[in-house]
Amino acid sequence: VGELVLVGMGLCDERDISLRGLEEARSAATVFVELYTSLMEGLSIKALANLTGKSIVLVSRRMLEEEDGREIIEAARRGKTVMLVPGDPLIATTHVDLRMRAAKAGIQTRIVHGASILSAAIGLSGLQNYKFGASVTIPSPEKYAASETPMNIIRRNREFGLHTLCYLDLDVERQQYMTISQALKTLLEAAARRHSQVVSNDGLVVGIARAGASDPAVKADLVKTIVGYDFGNPPHALIFPGRLHFMEAEALIVLANAPESTRTMVE
Amino acid sequence: VGELVLVGMGLCDERDISLRGLEEARSAATVFVELYTSLMEGLSIKALANLTGKSIVLVSRRMLEEEDGREIIEAARRGKTVMLVPGDPLIATTHVDLRMRAAKAGIQTRIVHGASILSAAIGLSGLQNYKFGASVTIPSPEKYAASETPMNIIRRNREFGLHTLCYLDLDVERQQYMTISQALKTLLEAAARRHSQVVSNDGLVVGIARAGASDPAVKADLVKTIVGYDFGNPPHALIFPGRLHFMEAEALIVLANAPESTRTMVE
Repeated sequence: VGELVLVGMGLCDERDISLRGLEEARSAATVFVELYTSLMEGLSIKALANLTGKSIVLVSRRMLEEEDGREIIEAARRGKTVMLVPGDPLIATTHVDLRMRAAKAGIQTRIVHGASILSAAIGLSGLQNYKFGASVTIPSPEKYAASETPMNIIRRNREFGLHTLCYLDLDVERQQYMTISQALKTLLEAAARRHSQVVSNDGLVVGIARAGASDPAVKADLVKTIVGYDFGNPPHALIFPGRLHFMEAEALIVLANAPESTRTMVE
Repeated sequence: VGELVLVGMGLCDERDISLRGLEEARSAATVFVELYTSLMEGLSIKALANLTGKSIVLVSRRMLEEEDGREIIEAARRGKTVMLVPGDPLIATTHVDLRMRAAKAGIQTRIVHGASILSAAIGLSGLQNYKFGASVTIPSPEKYAASETPMNIIRRNREFGLHTLCYLDLDVERQQYMTISQALKTLLEAAARRHSQVVSNDGLVVGIARAGASDPAVKADLVKTIVGYDFGNPPHALIFPGRLHFMEAEALIVLANAPESTRTMVE
């Protein structure tokens, strides 16, 4: 009789939930919210409670990852249970895990999708979706000092002319959010260690901050300029362009304030 | 004084708009809707009009692509103008073009993001986002009989262990939607012509229909089985897995009803 509905809340605050998602929460017996897999800058649990008319249980990383989501599964066994999550629900693997556990417990699951940084960052850059290769997370240098994975992914994508979307490390519980500047410095150091030019001061890069908020920042320029640019509050993301179509170069100039010289980078 | 706000409507019907997007439409002087870049199965203009309290102007492909969106730009010059679009607004390049034209005309643009098939299909498959390479559209065989692009993208992604998300050709104006079965037959023929095994009867594939609707279908199996499987109404999409992590194989079995033998495909 119970069921579990994972509802994506989108990118910024409580107004980014869909009408469909809101209906699901309003008709649920129990509503959980998870807020640690992504930062929703303007969200408050109080605003969600007002909107849904429900008291809302905050889900910790421990509840989901160490205790295997038992409390949520048990609630879903008793009645309709909604878990509100940032972005699009199944982009975080921890929610795929929860969905599998629910399915194995014989509980039906449904998904209400939400806006994701994946399509938002691609769209805001003006670059073309089908020209993006694999994406990658830039880990905090304190965690993985020697990680060369991002550099290798960017290099491989670029060999095929493809763009690379980079998510930046975040730890919402500790309120630590990697900035574009920190990420670029980390990548420049990794490249220098390997005598690689895959990320270099004179390469083009696009910085994106607060995708989905009312004041997003999108700026394309050479790495040496972007590394010193103030993008303001988190969350931040980066795109390393591969081969540019002339319409993409034009979009970067008009929509991301790229230098006019970007036109000369069209291949 | 005018501005243009592009609002993503998400995946299925009028209830997939966000509260933020709905507020924008309700406070606009003019509201347009574009319905040809993606299929929103349950959407009606009448339902949108009821919801927003506005009369809504349907935008044709001609208005956007042949007439360069002049009517929309002119409306945005006069006052706040909202254009409602399927999915996440800037994933269709035609909307990036419109945004550039507005910017060049001195009109401020803003984006309200919506759920996209990009993150929805990836999430529903249970496969991991960062393991997807470039995505590709399977063109209708009537349009591009000899297209080998999809096969080449799938092959290249697989060489690096990456999954491939395939959008299927659609023509909303003519109500022609490629099915998973048609797409697989097209790919099998292209592979046979080239004596290639990149798409073969014994390969694993994931079919996804109606992502975001209340009755999505997600099914993983060998190509020879999926080609005969009835996924029901459009829109359809396909995923060709690359190298499977054991958790991904498990997810395909539990969430996409893949055969138990999928576990033996983990590399």
